[in-house]
Amino acid sequence: ARSYNITLLPGDGIGPEVVAVAKDVLSLAGALEGVELRFQEKLVGGSALDATGVPLPDETLDAAKGSDAVLLGAIGGYKWDNNEKHLKPETGLLQLRAGLGVFANLRPAAVLPQLVDASTLKKEVAEGVDIMVVRELTGGIYFGKPRGFGTNDNGDDIGFNTEVYSASEIDRIARVAFEVARKRRGRLCSVDKANVLEASMLWRKRVTALASEFPDIELSHMYVDNAAMQLVRNPKQFDTIVTNNIFGDILSDEASMITGSIGMLPSASVGESGPGLFEPIHGSAPDIAGQDKANPLATILSAAMLLRYGLGEENAANRIEAAVTETLNHGFRTGDIYSPGTTLVGCKRMGEEVLKTV
Amino acid sequence: ARSYNITLLPGDGIGPEVVAVAKDVLSLAGALEGVELRFQEKLVGGSALDATGVPLPDETLDAAKGSDAVLLGAIGGYKWDNNEKHLKPETGLLQLRAGLGVFANLRPAAVLPQLVDASTLKKEVAEGVDIMVVRELTGGIYFGKPRGFGTNDNGDDIGFNTEVYSASEIDRIARVAFEVARKRRGRLCSVDKANVLEASMLWRKRVTALASEFPDIELSHMYVDNAAMQLVRNPKQFDTIVTNNIFGDILSDEASMITGSIGMLPSASVGESGPGLFEPIHGSAPDIAGQDKANPLATILSAAMLLRYGLGEENAANRIEAAVTETLNHGFRTGDIYSPGTTLVGCKRMGEEVLKTV
Ligand SMILES: CC(C)[C@H](C(=O)O)[C@@H](O)C(=O)O
Ligand SMILES: CC(C)[C@H](C(=O)O)[C@@H](O)C(=O)O
Repeated sequence: ARSYNITLLPGDGIGPEVVAVAKDVLSLAGALEGVELRFQEKLVGGSALDATGVPLPDETLDAAKGSDAVLLGAIGGYKWDNNEKHLKPETGLLQLRAGLGVFANLRPAAVLPQLVDASTLKKEVAEGVDIMVVRELTGGIYFGKPRGFGTNDNGDDIGFNTEVYSASEIDRIARVAFEVARKRRGRLCSVDKANVLEASMLWRKRVTALASEFPDIELSHMYVDNAAMQLVRNPKQFDTIVTNNIFGDILSDEASMITGSIGMLPSASVGESGPGLFEPIHGSAPDIAGQDKANPLATILSAAMLLRYGLGEENAANRIEAAVTETLNHGFRTGDIYSPGTTLVGCKRMGEEVLKTV
Repeated sequence: ARSYNITLLPGDGIGPEVVAVAKDVLSLAGALEGVELRFQEKLVGGSALDATGVPLPDETLDAAKGSDAVLLGAIGGYKWDNNEKHLKPETGLLQLRAGLGVFANLRPAAVLPQLVDASTLKKEVAEGVDIMVVRELTGGIYFGKPRGFGTNDNGDDIGFNTEVYSASEIDRIARVAFEVARKRRGRLCSVDKANVLEASMLWRKRVTALASEFPDIELSHMYVDNAAMQLVRNPKQFDTIVTNNIFGDILSDEASMITGSIGMLPSASVGESGPGLFEPIHGSAPDIAGQDKANPLATILSAAMLLRYGLGEENAANRIEAAVTETLNHGFRTGDIYSPGTTLVGCKRMGEEVLKTV
């Protein structure tokens, strides 16, 4: 039997609840496909800060690096919001992404037919939306140097960051995006601000040059401000979007909200080699933590992405995705996606229903 | 009689058509309130490039600086899209903003009752949305240095930009935003990425410190990715938003599209002193240029902002705004906001209808 080591990083807030449920689903789907999954649980984010004083203990990064894939819940909470930068839960997440070298963040935003009413967009606009945002995850302004605080020539305090991309960083993320577009509907839209930023001009130049290697893919370019508009105006025009770290942060969240059900949306972050990082796109939701109210489906679907993109276990991934669809068809809903006429359930119960149909 | 000098910068694409119409409206509204307006027209953007080889001739900047207010149409077009940076129409616009020192860009995004159906958002979500985005316009990554192209330690090509804010740059835009919020519904949301960027950490610190001077304003903070989501989820939660140059570029365009009628939206850019710059938020729309199809209302409403914020001529401004409302109530619509049962008109005719009601 094929066997894999999975690092679980429950994190903060609702993270532990949703990861616990997703773990059971992952185990069962694996077992039914002859795949043995071994789990180890480690600390990250605020819970790591509280226990060890740092948001990403060496032990956690080492365990993650030594495993076949990593499933993360969520990080952060009010408690740590005013911490200094190196003591923020978010810093632990950024260190984890950098440490694993997972430069390609895949964020699907699809409107499920069962949940089309959850969108704030008109039905005819939301229906059928199926976007994949490919976000560069380990470069750009998140990691660029120099960065920090100082004073300018007038003696005035300043804060500064560097947006920087190299040709090879752009090429590798663009390649991933072209490949992703090829497995989807064959259209790739590269988003930048090349009318203003040099980093974006290089971005556009490299992406354009790579297009000759993918003659079957229809490439277009869009400025980021226009992309933010077009996602609202007509999201169906998009298939695959590729963009830098900060624009990807903003646009993938905007795209996810267009589905109206961010409690449903998974993500996968992968590198050249080594384990991938899989996590729901929602946050740690401290307000409802520990109340069995969280929607575990985004984490369960992240587990499916883990099987597909992280382990190459397509069959087990399909099992999970089919089970989620069936559970929704049976009418089960957590509070965030509830509508009259459906059955309101908690996090655990939702997990049990998915398990029944896996 | 009070008299003012206005610089008109028609620019490219539909710019000349909409500025011509707005000029007539401005003249008449002024005359009816005893205000004499003298106009001079200058080149900017692509048309300046074609005529003089640069996107902002000295003559244009000097004229603008020497006048009481500047009304701009739109700049840019396919023709100049692949120009080098210093020969892009956009560069002319950025030089104009910097040259005039107009650091505060006010971008209202309000859903008009007559046009609520134009929004792609559900009626109950769009109805009553009334947001003012206050965008910092002469700092941040648009102007930060160092910037450019180079090679890194691996000999790889790089493109880079600097996001930088000083305490005084933050303070002055925050002050404008607090004042704007005071004249509106008293709520200000500052948008940043202070969980990752040092420039944003300083931003949040300074905005927070200033709040004590405005005890009547309710200040909140939001991360930019969340703001991009919340604008889609529930835009009515926002009153006034203040943010940096690049986040403001993205979020103000997203907010404008939520209204569904970007052909209606004006903007005002003002500095400490000196003439303000007033322009519609839409682009140069080269596809429909010269066809008398453009919606002139955004430029007409920009002329109203010019009277109010640029010249302090509140009565003349109110006249124009009332005339636009009345013209819409009479059912006149350009193609971009047309719906069955209304009267389709062109750019010039729309201008005539507004003139009749001024
Ligand atoms: C928590 C934060 C650092 C993170 C990011 O900005 O990347 C989050 O918003 C995300 O998108 O995963
Ligand atoms: C044309 C471009 C340089 C400009 C900007 O990014 O500021 C435009 O998008 C705007 O928002 O006015």
